[in-house]
Amino acid sequence: MYPYQQLFSFTQEVFLHMGCPSEDAKLATEVLLDADLRGVDSHGVARLSGYVRLWEAGRINVRPQVKIVHQTPSTATVDGDGGLGLVVAPYAMEVAMGKAEQVGTGWVSVLNSNHYGIAGYHAMKALQRDMIGISMTNASPLVAPTFSTDRMLGTNPIAVAVPTKNQPPFVADLATAAAANGKLEILQRKEKKAPQGWIQTADGQRTTNPHELKEGGALLPLGSDRNHGSHKGYALSSVVDIFSAVLSGANYGPWVPPFVSFLSPPADPVGKGIGHFFGAMRIDAFRPADEFKAHMDNWIETFRKAKVKKGEKAVLIPGDPERLMTQQRLKKGIPLLAPVERDLEELGKRFGVKL
Amino acid sequence: MYPYQQLFSFTQEVFLHMGCPSEDAKLATEVLLDADLRGVDSHGVARLSGYVRLWEAGRINVRPQVKIVHQTPSTATVDGDGGLGLVVAPYAMEVAMGKAEQVGTGWVSVLNSNHYGIAGYHAMKALQRDMIGISMTNASPLVAPTFSTDRMLGTNPIAVAVPTKNQPPFVADLATAAAANGKLEILQRKEKKAPQGWIQTADGQRTTNPHELKEGGALLPLGSDRNHGSHKGYALSSVVDIFSAVLSGANYGPWVPPFVSFLSPPADPVGKGIGHFFGAMRIDAFRPADEFKAHMDNWIETFRKAKVKKGEKAVLIPGDPERLMTQQRLKKGIPLLAPVERDLEELGKRFGVKL
Repeated sequence: MYPYQQLFSFTQEVFLHMGCPSEDAKLATEVLLDADLRGVDSHGVARLSGYVRLWEAGRINVRPQVKIVHQTPSTATVDGDGGLGLVVAPYAMEVAMGKAEQVGTGWVSVLNSNHYGIAGYHAMKALQRDMIGISMTNASPLVAPTFSTDRMLGTNPIAVAVPTKNQPPFVADLATAAAANGKLEILQRKEKKAPQGWIQTADGQRTTNPHELKEGGALLPLGSDRNHGSHKGYALSSVVDIFSAVLSGANYGPWVPPFVSFLSPPADPVGKGIGHFFGAMRIDAFRPADEFKAHMDNWIETFRKAKVKKGEKAVLIPGDPERLMTQQRLKKGIPLLAPVERDLEELGKRFGVKL
Repeated sequence: MYPYQQLFSFTQEVFLHMGCPSEDAKLATEVLLDADLRGVDSHGVARLSGYVRLWEAGRINVRPQVKIVHQTPSTATVDGDGGLGLVVAPYAMEVAMGKAEQVGTGWVSVLNSNHYGIAGYHAMKALQRDMIGISMTNASPLVAPTFSTDRMLGTNPIAVAVPTKNQPPFVADLATAAAANGKLEILQRKEKKAPQGWIQTADGQRTTNPHELKEGGALLPLGSDRNHGSHKGYALSSVVDIFSAVLSGANYGPWVPPFVSFLSPPADPVGKGIGHFFGAMRIDAFRPADEFKAHMDNWIETFRKAKVKKGEKAVLIPGDPERLMTQQRLKKGIPLLAPVERDLEELGKRFGVKL
């Protein structure tokens, strides 16, 4: 178990050694480690060495001039200048919230960025300002559309955070694939089988072998197959891709550059970097915030009291598991798998930073 | 087979006999029959007698004063005054598009409305104005949250329509349940089994019996079970409920009034009527519309060319099946099931209108 503070200092030092300005190093660390706190281990410090390798490959600009390249009173297009998504995304979300202050809502599409950590972090920024926050991003193609064997879409997450009065906030944060790639990686490491409906082989057959993804297989959209609504997961993932990248001028679909540095980005890009999309809606642009928040409390209490199915413990509200995980990990520390630990120790040696 | 025009005249007459102003009768007919054209038979003329019965029960105001009750430059809250959703929704979508003309985007939450036909119709209104259209609505509770046996949510659809250059538009229109209720009704009529993962019994057991819904069972969220991401379908459905009703002041969750007139609305409403949510985003609020539309064409062509899985015909683009169905039905007419035909004939007798 690693105390949050210890991982924070370490990560921040690594970003500083990469050449990030100190403000950016701190912010990137906060965003990245929020994944570890919330239990999305695949998107947190485990990815730090991946960011370093992308930087070494010249695919991350550590001193980006992030800027608005087009705007209206309620919208903006932000160019991330090849910076860390961990830094570009908070800038863009801030722009969205500033617009919302002015005209009720703000919507920002981002091009020329990189991976931005977990979607939920950015959406939740709106909560303290009595706004609903929305965050989505495209990602490296791993998911096959319904009826296809080609990997055309990322696990393209959607996050929506909604403020409340006394209840903890409602925070939906979901990959539009049947299962996120991180879950598959865990099964791969543990040599366990995946449930039916998560992945298919290179020729589109059902499989439970989590290694098939390395053999040309693909993740399946939320819904798994046509009969269970995979065309809906495919459609939602497409919407995320379009809002994040076609709207901004980033790469979309199969052109999204891979996160891993050993795979080169496509030679014929249709845009710049990867894309994100953010939204902020001021509650009182629709009804008085107090009224809304009291009803949200009622909504949450009502759903929490719904009858529980035999064999299950409780009906959960979106955001519950991640919030409980955060409380636990802030207290007891963050567990790291042995390969992640080794990875970080090597990084530490290289930059002269102690883990 | 009934020619579209024949069903149009009949439906319009029925709305006129209910007392709708002639403009409203025409609009309501157009919206309702768009479901039949697009092949969503459960939401079209098959529901006409249901609307009539709700009107008889005093639950539909045929001469509503639909109005904006709160607004900012990019948002509005619209009170439907208990009118037909088929009339209230087009008004609200128009408000959203008007706001988008002014400040880039427009977002409208609606209270005090009724069922609005298919979500896609309203989203598609944005296409001709080079805007992305978004439409969602809550509905009578039929879906159980993950781990619950209580029906807490409607099939709460989300529609997103995206303009294109030479390709037909991208139109996603999806219920956030594993399967829409209409599909279940078809299985019930044909006495066929449902696939695993669509429904559960009153005590939460898996079942393939489509009649279980009448015995206290529930529809399952998109994803079907926890292992396949039902918590994501549940979260998305919840977002639709919150945007449509908690934001506007309509009824949410288990308080949404039932569509069928023989079930009374809850005695302790938390709001007024049912709720919708609409969005319009001007493309050129982000980047030049021509540029965007050329890239959308490329997006669509690329996905259409994705490798097809053995045994399947083609990789479809969201909106393809409904568009082909519309072309076919405009040419060959709209088929009606015998019970729907009888229902309409009775309506016709009653109002002195020939089907």
